Amino acid sequence: MEKNTRLILALDVLNRDEAIKIAQDVAGNVDAIKVGYPLVLASGLGIIGELAKYAHIIADFKVADIPNTNRLICEQVFDAGADAVIVQGFTGHDSLKICVDLARERGKDVFVVTEMSHPGALDLMQDAGEAIARMAANAEASGVVAPATRPERVKEIRRIIGDEIAIISPGVGAQGGSASDTIKAGADWAIVGRSIYQSEDPAGAAAEIVREIKEAV
Amino acid sequence: MEKNTRLILALDVLNRDEAIKIAQDVAGNVDAIKVGYPLVLASGLGIIGELAKYAHIIADFKVADIPNTNRLICEQVFDAGADAVIVQGFTGHDSLKICVDLARERGKDVFVVTEMSHPGALDLMQDAGEAIARMAANAEASGVVAPATRPERVKEIRRIIGDEIAIISPGVGAQGGSASDTIKAGADWAIVGRSIYQSEDPAGAAAEIVREIKEAV
Repeated sequence: MEKNTRLILALDVLNRDEAIKIAQDVAGNVDAIKVGYPLVLASGLGIIGELAKYAHIIADFKVADIPNTNRLICEQVFDAGADAVIVQGFTGHDSLKICVDLARERGKDVFVVTEMSHPGALDLMQDAGEAIARMAANAEASGVVAPATRPERVKEIRRIIGDEIAIISPGVGAQGGSASDTIKAGADWAIVGRSIYQSEDPAGAAAEIVREIKEAV
Repeated sequence: MEKNTRLILALDVLNRDEAIKIAQDVAGNVDAIKVGYPLVLASGLGIIGELAKYAHIIADFKVADIPNTNRLICEQVFDAGADAVIVQGFTGHDSLKICVDLARERGKDVFVVTEMSHPGALDLMQDAGEAIARMAANAEASGVVAPATRPERVKEIRRIIGDEIAIISPGVGAQGGSASDTIKAGADWAIVGRSIYQSEDPAGAAAEIVREIKEAV
């Protein structure tokens, strides 16, 4: 994934036509578009290939199953045209490794969720976050996902994983995080959703965040 | 879900026509059919409605996201005709609760993964298993998923959750677990995949497991 604007759009809409319109609109201002299951279940897996015409696509499927099922999911995601997939690390090193091995064969990327920012993430994930970050670095995943709402955690995760793998960082904007703060804390990309796709001018909103990031670095 | 044969088929095939043929074949011998993302991504979400003509459908999506995304996924799963969904518990109480609340509104079921049986499950999930089982009981989920490969764990999880919620138990057959052993340990349903769908006579193979279960109880 080319590190150009350092901005990823979280395209959390459910409607195919709306998704494509926004992707066309913001394509020049983002390095990738992240799509999740809600859009893919509503539109079919083909939406990934359609969106891939306009941008690098990250399938945010939080893949969280046994190794063989994880492989079957990632194969379909990559076959559909996605450039990267987001997987959960909680399910362990073998579930992760099979995704990373497949991605490497195909020239694709795997990003691993370390911590999440909703309240329930404090129940069990928070304590596991550092172990998962180490697991991702050991597996030579392309990167990890760490919350922009907690820049001090992004900094700590950067310390744990070193500089070889990337950090992509959601939670910017409506959820309270700042794109420039998470980049300064060590994230490579900020992930922004509603502030862009709910804007009347998505391309303009994205361009403004890109300017904010450029000023910060 | 009616407790009749106490057998659930894990329909882990990728081909729509094959899936429907097997579902038609085994319908009378199973209480439900469990389908995962590999089949749904390959066939489209509509496969759930097609299969629901023949059996109660459990969508084994290991849902593992923030509460709002979990809700969007479960809404589509239930709208598509699934009677139940399997969610991960490690993402925390709020991610779980929103699924349970939605299921209750719709008269559907949520089953929560406690432990898994692949080697990597020992990394982080094993230690969290009992906390997740308690979380599932507190949330009044319909039940939990616990591995037939470890009947002593099924027994312990039954002790933790009490008798109000169900245990469905995968890992029977090719993975080494026994349907009768996991039922005797406290599971309400045994989940069997390859031993049925790879058989030349799926209905016969299912009927044989049902006999084994009936003899055990």
